[in-house]
Amino acid sequence: MITLSSDFVSPYPAAMRGVLHAECEATIVDVTHDFPRQDVRTAAFWLREVLPTFPPAVHLAVIDPGVGTDRAALVIRAGDHALVGPDNGVLIPAGRTLAATEPNETDGEETSSLEVYEIDMDDPASATFHGRDVFAPMAASVHRSGIDAFESVSELSSAESYTELSFPAPTQQSSGVEGEILVVDGFGTAITNIPGEMIETPMGETIEVDGEAVPVERSYAYVDPGERLLTIGSHGNVELAVNQGRGEEAFAKTRGDSVHLTW
Amino acid sequence: MITLSSDFVSPYPAAMRGVLHAECEATIVDVTHDFPRQDVRTAAFWLREVLPTFPPAVHLAVIDPGVGTDRAALVIRAGDHALVGPDNGVLIPAGRTLAATEPNETDGEETSSLEVYEIDMDDPASATFHGRDVFAPMAASVHRSGIDAFESVSELSSAESYTELSFPAPTQQSSGVEGEILVVDGFGTAITNIPGEMIETPMGETIEVDGEAVPVERSYAYVDPGERLLTIGSHGNVELAVNQGRGEEAFAKTRGDSVHLTW
Amino acid sequence: MITLSSDFVSPYPAAMRGVLHAECEATIVDVTHDFPRQDVRTAAFWLREVLPTFPPAVHLAVIDPGVGTDRAALVIRAGDHALVGPDNGVLIPAGRTLAATEPNETDGEETSSLEVYEIDMDDPASATFHGRDVFAPMAASVHRSGIDAFESVSELSSAESYTELSFPAPTQQSSGVEGEILVVDGFGTAITNIPGEMIETPMGETIEVDGEAVPVERSYAYVDPGERLLTIGSHGNVELAVNQGRGEEAFAKTRGDSVHLTW
Repeated sequence: MITLSSDFVSPYPAAMRGVLHAECEATIVDVTHDFPRQDVRTAAFWLREVLPTFPPAVHLAVIDPGVGTDRAALVIRAGDHALVGPDNGVLIPAGRTLAATEPNETDGEETSSLEVYEIDMDDPASATFHGRDVFAPMAASVHRSGIDAFESVSELSSAESYTELSFPAPTQQSSGVEGEILVVDGFGTAITNIPGEMIETPMGETIEVDGEAVPVERSYAYVDPGERLLTIGSHGNVELAVNQGRGEEAFAKTRGDSVHLTW
Repeated sequence: MITLSSDFVSPYPAAMRGVLHAECEATIVDVTHDFPRQDVRTAAFWLREVLPTFPPAVHLAVIDPGVGTDRAALVIRAGDHALVGPDNGVLIPAGRTLAATEPNETDGEETSSLEVYEIDMDDPASATFHGRDVFAPMAASVHRSGIDAFESVSELSSAESYTELSFPAPTQQSSGVEGEILVVDGFGTAITNIPGEMIETPMGETIEVDGEAVPVERSYAYVDPGERLLTIGSHGNVELAVNQGRGEEAFAKTRGDSVHLTW
Repeated sequence: MITLSSDFVSPYPAAMRGVLHAECEATIVDVTHDFPRQDVRTAAFWLREVLPTFPPAVHLAVIDPGVGTDRAALVIRAGDHALVGPDNGVLIPAGRTLAATEPNETDGEETSSLEVYEIDMDDPASATFHGRDVFAPMAASVHRSGIDAFESVSELSSAESYTELSFPAPTQQSSGVEGEILVVDGFGTAITNIPGEMIETPMGETIEVDGEAVPVERSYAYVDPGERLLTIGSHGNVELAVNQGRGEEAFAKTRGDSVHLTW
């Protein structure tokens, strides 16, 4: 299986699908092509959330503001999965999660080590569409070789370094926590970096968000349409939401903003 | 085969695809994820239109305003098909159509009876994403068990009751018919509940829509761009349309509005 | 394999997927359903660019302003590929490219001849959705018969004529070239009909676009965000682009506009 993610508008993703189908026999599954344009951090967040739901696969993800420059191109082995894409950090959080959730074959211990390889790009057909001309052919090669053995692909060599990307941790405080909005989803819900387990307030009671009382609820429908709530999202983190509305607007929060929860 | 429908924004549908691929070997086909947000009736209309084009399959459809509340979760056997989703009526019209179009195995007679099962949900991983945590795993279980035998899945028991949903019938009148707009499609065409066979006016002649003469035509291109027409849509019902334009605006009709046709 | 392209809004494409899955065993791959509504020339451009990335396949493409009128419906053999859709020119540029890139079986020579067949449409189920009722069933028939032998499908006969469609060629001038904007892509980049090889200016230097100096660059990131550039797109043609912006606006160009490059 090869999964496919990008920030490309139609019909560019189809050219990647065509190359993949032409060059290998894998089942091809679209993750999404609706990542915000050139937004590496948002894509990195969602890839970390979504890719671990898949069985072992080659994950091709092209969010690539530096296409055509000398940024490197990577193939990463992460547990039983492989990741293929540009060297800008977009693959790293997903890679660490995939590596951690796959038991190490030799001793059964969990590991989060990544094996990172660099793609030798000698004169691709275009300087603007490496998704089609570099990454899709490489994903097909990795699939043909097998995820366990792709280092034998001739265009690959061990990477000496690569771009890291991580998300900030929340700060525990005496009667609360200070966190940050990591992404706003397409429903307008503002997703924080605060794990749900940090919240000490029982469901149905209120918590202070930057000083204003907001109920903590199991799900959106526990408050009236248009009302604000805090809930634990499907990613396990605290979200600022509005039932049938947009939390980002009601809480006036966007990506990178800090948020204080007190109880 | 498992089909997948929702009103989820990207990348949430991908998490359902991941779970399905991880938990069974089915071919996965997206129906759509562009249903209007939390609009159970519009989704119910389209599922009834589209799902019968598919071969026997498990149809996973998550339009779920009540996620996280105590609304039930259902699996329905409808002819050679199965439907999986929340108990809010969204699956019922499609289920009745699928059951009616599949001959009964024992006597060859057509039947429209539904067999409805309830999913025992003991503490799903999230209260906000049952598509990923309840319905996708159940669709995979139903596929693995086979549509003919899924009642053996351990989390299922016969439903004592479930939410009905049906569409209003038009009213025949002395020289016409009174109907209702069931949905407006993405082209802006207003689709009524009036079957094409009720129209007595020959193609190319006019009919009165709420008192104004409008031509009845085989297809959009029979009138000039920007002109209004009535036509029989692909669902068999009368539509209020504009060639290369939006019928909802030109006829000032939205979902639920009544419409009088006279001849 | 069957690929699927249209300008249909959700959920109409799903009905075509359903019919294809019900009527043949092919792998079904979406190219796009986001072609601009009824824009035959833009769809023809993109099909020519994207379909050649695929392995031999039946390509179903329904951009069909004349649906329900007496326009013909075609099946075209183009090398190892087949194309199915309305007779309005949309399939022709892709067909010629697919035929040219496939070596002729008998003598190994390249050929660009198309074999064009007309579909006998006797009373399809609807006059407004031939994608579901005419073209998808025919694509399934062609797939079942095999691309090499589909002329035996009973509804097909050789077409005596069909609608041509071609793109204008640029005009070489003493110190430059006069071209035309063929399409604007979803990023707002204006794609010309000028092949990159016609440009004599080295990368990094400027060229005059309608009299104003603009740098020619390998890729977008070589200029600052918001700055204009000329680049050679993934289709091989000169594009008018803006790094992280919309070239159509910065250059005030839309489809069909002429553009003068001088050096």
